[in-house]
Amino acid sequence: MDVVEVVPNAEQYAYTFGGVAPLRRVRPGTALRVWSDDAFGGVLRSVDDLSGDKVDLRFVNPQTGPFHVEGAEPGDTLALHFVALEPARDWGASAAIPYFGGLTGTDRVALLQEPLPDTTWIYELDRTRGTVTFTARRGELRVDLPLEPMLGTVGVAPTGGEVRSSLVPERFGGNMDSPEMRPGATCFLGVNVEGALFSVGDGHYRQGEGEACGTAVEGAMTSTFIVELIKGGAPLWPRIENDTHWMTVGSSRPLEDAWRIGMVELVRWFGELYGLDAMDAYQLLSQITEVPIANVVDANYSAVVKARKSLLPAAQAYGGLHDELRARARGLL
Amino acid sequence: MDVVEVVPNAEQYAYTFGGVAPLRRVRPGTALRVWSDDAFGGVLRSVDDLSGDKVDLRFVNPQTGPFHVEGAEPGDTLALHFVALEPARDWGASAAIPYFGGLTGTDRVALLQEPLPDTTWIYELDRTRGTVTFTARRGELRVDLPLEPMLGTVGVAPTGGEVRSSLVPERFGGNMDSPEMRPGATCFLGVNVEGALFSVGDGHYRQGEGEACGTAVEGAMTSTFIVELIKGGAPLWPRIENDTHWMTVGSSRPLEDAWRIGMVELVRWFGELYGLDAMDAYQLLSQITEVPIANVVDANYSAVVKARKSLLPAAQAYGGLHDELRARARGLL
Amino acid sequence: MDVVEVVPNAEQYAYTFGGVAPLRRVRPGTALRVWSDDAFGGVLRSVDDLSGDKVDLRFVNPQTGPFHVEGAEPGDTLALHFVALEPARDWGASAAIPYFGGLTGTDRVALLQEPLPDTTWIYELDRTRGTVTFTARRGELRVDLPLEPMLGTVGVAPTGGEVRSSLVPERFGGNMDSPEMRPGATCFLGVNVEGALFSVGDGHYRQGEGEACGTAVEGAMTSTFIVELIKGGAPLWPRIENDTHWMTVGSSRPLEDAWRIGMVELVRWFGELYGLDAMDAYQLLSQITEVPIANVVDANYSAVVKARKSLLPAAQAYGGLHDELRARARGLL
Amino acid sequence: MDVVEVVPNAEQYAYTFGGVAPLRRVRPGTALRVWSDDAFGGVLRSVDDLSGDKVDLRFVNPQTGPFHVEGAEPGDTLALHFVALEPARDWGASAAIPYFGGLTGTDRVALLQEPLPDTTWIYELDRTRGTVTFTARRGELRVDLPLEPMLGTVGVAPTGGEVRSSLVPERFGGNMDSPEMRPGATCFLGVNVEGALFSVGDGHYRQGEGEACGTAVEGAMTSTFIVELIKGGAPLWPRIENDTHWMTVGSSRPLEDAWRIGMVELVRWFGELYGLDAMDAYQLLSQITEVPIANVVDANYSAVVKARKSLLPAAQAYGGLHDELRARARGLL
Repeated sequence: MDVVEVVPNAEQYAYTFGGVAPLRRVRPGTALRVWSDDAFGGVLRSVDDLSGDKVDLRFVNPQTGPFHVEGAEPGDTLALHFVALEPARDWGASAAIPYFGGLTGTDRVALLQEPLPDTTWIYELDRTRGTVTFTARRGELRVDLPLEPMLGTVGVAPTGGEVRSSLVPERFGGNMDSPEMRPGATCFLGVNVEGALFSVGDGHYRQGEGEACGTAVEGAMTSTFIVELIKGGAPLWPRIENDTHWMTVGSSRPLEDAWRIGMVELVRWFGELYGLDAMDAYQLLSQITEVPIANVVDANYSAVVKARKSLLPAAQAYGGLHDELRARARGLL
Repeated sequence: MDVVEVVPNAEQYAYTFGGVAPLRRVRPGTALRVWSDDAFGGVLRSVDDLSGDKVDLRFVNPQTGPFHVEGAEPGDTLALHFVALEPARDWGASAAIPYFGGLTGTDRVALLQEPLPDTTWIYELDRTRGTVTFTARRGELRVDLPLEPMLGTVGVAPTGGEVRSSLVPERFGGNMDSPEMRPGATCFLGVNVEGALFSVGDGHYRQGEGEACGTAVEGAMTSTFIVELIKGGAPLWPRIENDTHWMTVGSSRPLEDAWRIGMVELVRWFGELYGLDAMDAYQLLSQITEVPIANVVDANYSAVVKARKSLLPAAQAYGGLHDELRARARGLL
Repeated sequence: MDVVEVVPNAEQYAYTFGGVAPLRRVRPGTALRVWSDDAFGGVLRSVDDLSGDKVDLRFVNPQTGPFHVEGAEPGDTLALHFVALEPARDWGASAAIPYFGGLTGTDRVALLQEPLPDTTWIYELDRTRGTVTFTARRGELRVDLPLEPMLGTVGVAPTGGEVRSSLVPERFGGNMDSPEMRPGATCFLGVNVEGALFSVGDGHYRQGEGEACGTAVEGAMTSTFIVELIKGGAPLWPRIENDTHWMTVGSSRPLEDAWRIGMVELVRWFGELYGLDAMDAYQLLSQITEVPIANVVDANYSAVVKARKSLLPAAQAYGGLHDELRARARGLL
Repeated sequence: MDVVEVVPNAEQYAYTFGGVAPLRRVRPGTALRVWSDDAFGGVLRSVDDLSGDKVDLRFVNPQTGPFHVEGAEPGDTLALHFVALEPARDWGASAAIPYFGGLTGTDRVALLQEPLPDTTWIYELDRTRGTVTFTARRGELRVDLPLEPMLGTVGVAPTGGEVRSSLVPERFGGNMDSPEMRPGATCFLGVNVEGALFSVGDGHYRQGEGEACGTAVEGAMTSTFIVELIKGGAPLWPRIENDTHWMTVGSSRPLEDAWRIGMVELVRWFGELYGLDAMDAYQLLSQITEVPIANVVDANYSAVVKARKSLLPAAQAYGGLHDELRARARGLL
């Protein structure tokens, strides 16, 4: 199986879902190996680089894409199976950007207080040990943390002719900032426009659930994934399948509405998977869901709703595509 | 080590935190073995028992307690270490109570739609296999689920002379409905009144994160736990420690505010544990927290914020009390 | 008609709804003339008195009461008709209390930012002109504002044996902080306990909608009102009637849920007043409601939902009690 | 002063802010007389026309525009002064659209309940008496209500290359659904793109605050307004001035955040108008704001924050443009 390499130059970065001409056309079944810059466009390189000086908030979360998937039409389902995520730099950066993040007033939670101090942290990567290192800025603590690469942002063009900032998580995916978007996961997104026009970006070398300060260990990433297309069957909200879980992602404000969206989508999916009546699915899921918060910092908040496969009878989604993609992925590694 | 057995009769149930005379006085260090009724007061015994007919919503979530802890004064810290939770019946019950739960309008999310159908599910317990069995009401699916007993409700009397329903999770603990309240966990609560006046109840044979439909697999429970008292040091919000995690629980509405409360409490705790500056704690926790939603159905919503000990340097809270209680607990089993 | 004067001493102040022995027993029909202290207990007397130094947050919003209404039983309706509100001091005080208010992080909207500067404003009262004067603290602007006295807090004992801080607005009324609680208004509250046990306090010499900074022009008040009792008919949430409007008050978080509660209560009331089907009431009210926010700063937020009588056919609530009380009130002035 | 007439055909309707080629170029100072269709595209003409059958939710809220304002550049301020709004049909329509509105689950407040009954109400217009008539669908009540025409939707193209549905209220204006957008009002919007690219639509013959059921008395409208351009000075969020009030409109979820946005914008405006320090503006506004909810049903909720001019010293915004436009408007009538 061939792998198509894509390394955009900075002029080719996309900052929106929708509204951008395709970077490239791909056929269903294609494996891509895609470089993406970090959320800051690579400008925070030392603790002396402050976001207030260096980051232009109109140009953050650069996307690599969009990719036009041949044959994709509205109502179809795009499947992206993540094979490998490799850090493309030897350091990652995180920042407390003034008036951005979860424990500060923001442009949306508009308050009169002074901002938190603009602060940058640099995490050195140790590829041998598979770690990134936290270094306190106002103390001596250093902590090696496991490298756990993931993509903050995966999405398609929105419906209704909308064009949305790459900072937004929504029905079309986007900036969901969930650690579940990692190697071994298959993400299913409803197609809204011809060609689907998906893009990826916002690599994280690791991230806590909630992404509390608003930024993860942000890093350029080389992402290998397989693109597949299912005719019809578009889910209303993003679904993720991996070897262990059925998952949905809801994004809205307030956070309980993000959760509700994810729960209802999983009730719907359990109807498809198990023929369960909605009340029975509601009951069963009430006793088994895992619900990690994804982000509480973006334009919408995101919650992931998960059901563990090992608790449930065997079932297949989309004709067993995930298992098939896992097999194909092994041929790539 | 002796264990004090407490089995209240129905007239002794408490339905509030605060406002109730102590059921019993206990000395710090005491081990208790406490029976508590299920959230419905045991009235849902078959699928034909509907909550609309059988459940008086003024008398749900009966608490066993309150217990007066000798020497406890406002500003002190109550520690409850859970040793064992044993189902006290051979079945658990769950229900979609009209206008109660996460995917329906409620008295708080006031809407004009008709309620969901009043439905009861009974889960048979298999003690040998350690399972409870979901049985679909409108289909054939049966699923054995692991028995994972936990307590929905653990709390002390509130501050300011308030008296709160046992349905409420708040700063004083209460109806947090988190699966983390299980054997092996030590829960730390700030003492607000002389004697602390804690109670426990709302046993769940298992529960998904979020408790989506509003009720878990509700069951009478025999709970064994050790009561300890730390002079001073009252946390602002509930903290939980087990062998693997440092945890806090925030409860409020909307759900993002519950999360914020938990995050800020954990930032505060990390200041105590590691001498970390708040900005550094905010940053470090942003990369490592796990944030399972606890409930999105109660009078306040609850989120748990967790940090995995194995990622962090060794540290001790409250003089290493948790480890000591673990050792003492082994003597009880 | 006689008027019973009540002037409590500081030891008699109540700080909760429920949980306090009656200050006095009154018969339905009684007119009361009641003194209440300001929300700060009168300790902010100059701009140099800062809330951080002088205000003990455990003892704010002192209530005058509770009053036991003879014959009042759960399910009955308490009617309080406000005849006159007279400022009892020559100045009012307002303050930006650290971590309290609408444009700052709080104990509920938990953030890491520094607090806003603790600041006190004193408003001189000019009884002749009927004004209170705003004086800028960091500039020269002085603005005379009309004196428009109202009561921030009017409530009964809660249901379910709960006891709630006088800072809380809820189903039982309480700290709703609406300018509609002013002379000429009749407030209807459902009775939850024998005797109703209502209290009043938190006088405001004037207040903007939302009470943005968390405090109005707080002032001691002499309130004249008539107490009436309707057997049965308890509304689920507070209702207010004056000569021009039918009104309800919803209190919850987030603010949209406060609004929903108020809307559903007014749909219900229009069913009683006009025999309107709920869908028709929903439609009609969609075209005529006025919805001023009451507070966005208290433990629950409050919204008032109003329908102008002049737009509607004549109707009577509670047997025309409001008109009758207006007539009786004229006899008192 | 000439008035330019614009009557689009249905193919020319715009359904987004941004992403649409200009319908027409206009010079600052131009008076326009613009026809706009109703939110349903005119398809609900009798109570038997149900939204579920007739309304395609991809094509609602048709906009007339966008208009390219010559010389408008990002950072400038667009001023639209509304001179007259004339109903363009003899009836208006309102509907309870399934899963849309404030007292029902929606696509955002995702629940499992059945929808409210799909229902349409037709309001006959009486131009002589200046009324529209509510007619109950499930009873006999008929109520004549004053005709009070307003525009639900006024907005410019968004920033950052975004394109948003005409159902969205945001920083760029859009579907704010406030009764304040009526004759005599001047709306100030920040310009984000060359030419501003503003549009108008969603005429309402009248609307209650909150737009509870999700639709007002929707009607085709002929709107006369003057277009002006101020170089620089772009407000962050929409501002409205009329003869009696200074106003701002915040839009977000949850509703308290919409209010916060409006409050902070008005604090900022008071800094400009009166040289007030932010803390003093916060205090003064806390005592005088009127805060009617605009909508609790759209993709964002909107709140209007108002300060009454008569309470305040005289001040001028944007060089007194509003007064000048009022004078110019008199020449048009």
